Amino acid sequence: MIYSLGELAERIGADVAGDASRRIAGVRTLADAGPEHLSFFTSSRYLEAARASHAGAILAARGTTLPGRDLLFADSPQLALARALELFHPRPEPLPGVHATAIVGARARIDPTAAVGPFAVIGERVEIGARSVVGAHVVIGDGSVLGAGVTIHPHVVLYAGVRLGDRAEVHSGTVLGADGFGYATVKGRHHKIPQVGRVEIGADVEIGALSAIDRALLGATTIGAGTKVDNLVQVGHNVEVGEGSVLCGQAGIAGSAKLGRGVVLAGQAGVAGHLELGDGVQVAAKSAALESVSAGTPVAGIPAVPLGVWRRQQAVARRLPELWRRLLRIERRLGLGEEERDGSDDGNGNAGDKEA
Amino acid sequence: MIYSLGELAERIGADVAGDASRRIAGVRTLADAGPEHLSFFTSSRYLEAARASHAGAILAARGTTLPGRDLLFADSPQLALARALELFHPRPEPLPGVHATAIVGARARIDPTAAVGPFAVIGERVEIGARSVVGAHVVIGDGSVLGAGVTIHPHVVLYAGVRLGDRAEVHSGTVLGADGFGYATVKGRHHKIPQVGRVEIGADVEIGALSAIDRALLGATTIGAGTKVDNLVQVGHNVEVGEGSVLCGQAGIAGSAKLGRGVVLAGQAGVAGHLELGDGVQVAAKSAALESVSAGTPVAGIPAVPLGVWRRQQAVARRLPELWRRLLRIERRLGLGEEERDGSDDGNGNAGDKEA
Amino acid sequence: MIYSLGELAERIGADVAGDASRRIAGVRTLADAGPEHLSFFTSSRYLEAARASHAGAILAARGTTLPGRDLLFADSPQLALARALELFHPRPEPLPGVHATAIVGARARIDPTAAVGPFAVIGERVEIGARSVVGAHVVIGDGSVLGAGVTIHPHVVLYAGVRLGDRAEVHSGTVLGADGFGYATVKGRHHKIPQVGRVEIGADVEIGALSAIDRALLGATTIGAGTKVDNLVQVGHNVEVGEGSVLCGQAGIAGSAKLGRGVVLAGQAGVAGHLELGDGVQVAAKSAALESVSAGTPVAGIPAVPLGVWRRQQAVARRLPELWRRLLRIERRLGLGEEERDGSDDGNGNAGDKEA
Repeated sequence: MIYSLGELAERIGADVAGDASRRIAGVRTLADAGPEHLSFFTSSRYLEAARASHAGAILAARGTTLPGRDLLFADSPQLALARALELFHPRPEPLPGVHATAIVGARARIDPTAAVGPFAVIGERVEIGARSVVGAHVVIGDGSVLGAGVTIHPHVVLYAGVRLGDRAEVHSGTVLGADGFGYATVKGRHHKIPQVGRVEIGADVEIGALSAIDRALLGATTIGAGTKVDNLVQVGHNVEVGEGSVLCGQAGIAGSAKLGRGVVLAGQAGVAGHLELGDGVQVAAKSAALESVSAGTPVAGIPAVPLGVWRRQQAVARRLPELWRRLLRIERRLGLGEEERDGSDDGNGNAGDKEA
Repeated sequence: MIYSLGELAERIGADVAGDASRRIAGVRTLADAGPEHLSFFTSSRYLEAARASHAGAILAARGTTLPGRDLLFADSPQLALARALELFHPRPEPLPGVHATAIVGARARIDPTAAVGPFAVIGERVEIGARSVVGAHVVIGDGSVLGAGVTIHPHVVLYAGVRLGDRAEVHSGTVLGADGFGYATVKGRHHKIPQVGRVEIGADVEIGALSAIDRALLGATTIGAGTKVDNLVQVGHNVEVGEGSVLCGQAGIAGSAKLGRGVVLAGQAGVAGHLELGDGVQVAAKSAALESVSAGTPVAGIPAVPLGVWRRQQAVARRLPELWRRLLRIERRLGLGEEERDGSDDGNGNAGDKEA
Repeated sequence: MIYSLGELAERIGADVAGDASRRIAGVRTLADAGPEHLSFFTSSRYLEAARASHAGAILAARGTTLPGRDLLFADSPQLALARALELFHPRPEPLPGVHATAIVGARARIDPTAAVGPFAVIGERVEIGARSVVGAHVVIGDGSVLGAGVTIHPHVVLYAGVRLGDRAEVHSGTVLGADGFGYATVKGRHHKIPQVGRVEIGADVEIGALSAIDRALLGATTIGAGTKVDNLVQVGHNVEVGEGSVLCGQAGIAGSAKLGRGVVLAGQAGVAGHLELGDGVQVAAKSAALESVSAGTPVAGIPAVPLGVWRRQQAVARRLPELWRRLLRIERRLGLGEEERDGSDDGNGNAGDKEA
């Protein structure tokens, strides 16, 4: 596939600044691109790399200046990039049909345009919609329902009663609908509370590799339409995540937490159980929301506090050794001795446990 | 299945306060329940939802008042709930036998009442006890031994030499017995130390989805009877976890750590290697035990300190900006300038590394 | 297999201090060893256990004294241990050939000395080198290339276009080459950016169970030769990890971060996207590198700062309650009231969000 820069610009919703007749054969990174390639950058930190690139054309944010270059401008360079990549790398059309080695349960309804891969095990009464693709080794439990255009990569497991909306995509190793973590603990013994609820994943949700979304105790664990979930993410039972949210790698949400729309959990963030994060809340990387947060608030820290508060605390935390010295200086000036200090409360308290 | 409230109460160990003849057809959440349903609540935060519910009967803690309702009281509402759910949702009895597509190794001994699913691969000399269920695609390495009534969900991998006690349950994607992470590093090269030990899982242990419990270098990595492990939990080689412990989602335990009985690791907690947590230690969410902790101590923070100490530290940490201002006020009062401050120790020290 | 202590010493590169004719039948832990076993210890914390052991011979660091014992000394006891374990536990040689149930794509080239297990699904144009072992249920996407002597344990998924160097080893459940987490977000909608790059794993890399290494957007996500990756580790798209690095359990690296050679991420550590960690950087357990770090620097904390700085901050942080009391004492001495305190900045600021 080769496009002129002008054609390409039109197809991806960009404007040309330069030679619209330049022929473009693909998209490459700044380092790998040659004169026949389109490259891109979306952050000013890569401006130097862009200057040094051999790319014939570069897609950038409006207002970028790169003298002597053919440029493509777009309101959202990322979106234009996505479209360019779709153009040069169209998804392969899977062959419809059920592989001879797949095992399909009684009364399952698989659309004739859907594709089911080798060694897949499809339970009873499962429904798989038009053009959906079920990869090799996927296991789908009884009564689960997949909409149209769904993509399930190899080695995904859906327990019974999981619903996936249209165009949802689930990456390898992910487990949807395993039992929630619920026990009745009596005299130190943990009695399993049967987890008989469901998992409901909205349309256009993408879930990365090796994530776990547990079924509800009763009712449903729900992921709203358009939400994107990264790898190794944990979603506990009865959690509700609103539409258009983003859960980054290794984030975790404890049971019965309720997240609004457009919530962002950065990498390794955590959310405690039974709380609410309002629409648009952002939890910073490695932070832990242990209390509810009202809509629109970015939070950080363990426990998480509003970002501005966290920054002010951090500003002082970084200067704690200095603060201590200045306190000592004041005490010296005032002739205050250290003897008043209460040795029992040295703030560590763990010393007695040291064994190493 | 329909029970009168009285029958139900008797079967789940609860007392009726109200109309014992009410007919109950199932258990539902407070929001979903109708007059023919039992619902429940176990925390006062859901009292309003309970009042608003259309549930015909509600299971609650003794002493709860909900005027005009049929109530069930139990010493442990959770345990009564577990029993009610077992009653209305009995586990399906799997058909005994080995699926035609499963591959079974030489000298494996599979009890005739056990069930082995499609595409399972059972190694040599494996033993599977009575009424155990091995799901689709499960791989069981040579010489592994499963007790009676064990449930292995689809896509679990047991390496060679893993032992599972009676009634243990393992959810999809979990890997038991992969090599521990051990290398001899000489001049920057990491030489693998063969991991030739075992994994031993006690009776009544449940392990969630996508958790990893590594085999020991020598000897055994052990999980005590009745311990419950959530999803995406990491247990390093030679770790010992005592009976009745609880490891919540995304918790991690480094090699050779020894946890007592009834230890609780909350979500995303971490435990460093080669240390001991005594019986009943609780590590708070997102905290990291970097030193041994004596029995019965709840700890929090990174590094973890006793919970009371952590709370006192946090109380001041939250007020650090105020503390700083008050320090400055004192310095002003005393006419102490800032010039004495040692600029080389601004507590950040990382500034020279900033590249972005 | 039985060796004299002298033979054993010679084969593992150790020196005998004691009876070289003692017959050794295996390696055991200090607790499990008897007179016919070699045991070992590599940390002084196990000296007492070594004294109490019934082991016939003990491998230890040079200079160790254990009166009345046959000892083996080595410069690196760990390396000598590795060799002893290799001697007593040689890897089973898998039978070459492709299992009858495996499905192999068109134009795949599988070396006749390689072994492919049951239910494996090998894509088109895949190459598998000499003596490589592909376990049961492994899925290898189109065009992936495995070098010689590679070991892929059961239930690993390689998406299309993943390259593994010679002697690489990948444990069960790991997913290599799933799509990177990249979206163009416009007006709250997240549009997928096709991830069309590769994953390249160097020679002698070992990857634990249930880790995820995403394919690049363009170009390659790369893991340098000799690097070791533990379980449940997340590596984002376009990350570059240098040679001989160590990524411990549950560590995570966000997209486009660049790690040098010999970098160590301890357990549950995190690295933010688009930054650089120089050669030999060490990130402490549970810490988060949010900015670039120059070569050779150990860092700790959230956000991570140089280890020495972190220690000084921690020393004060532990004494915050005391610091507060001493501040109050000074204020009392100076007759400074608390009324000057600015109540609006109590450092919590989250109180208004509490909903529970």
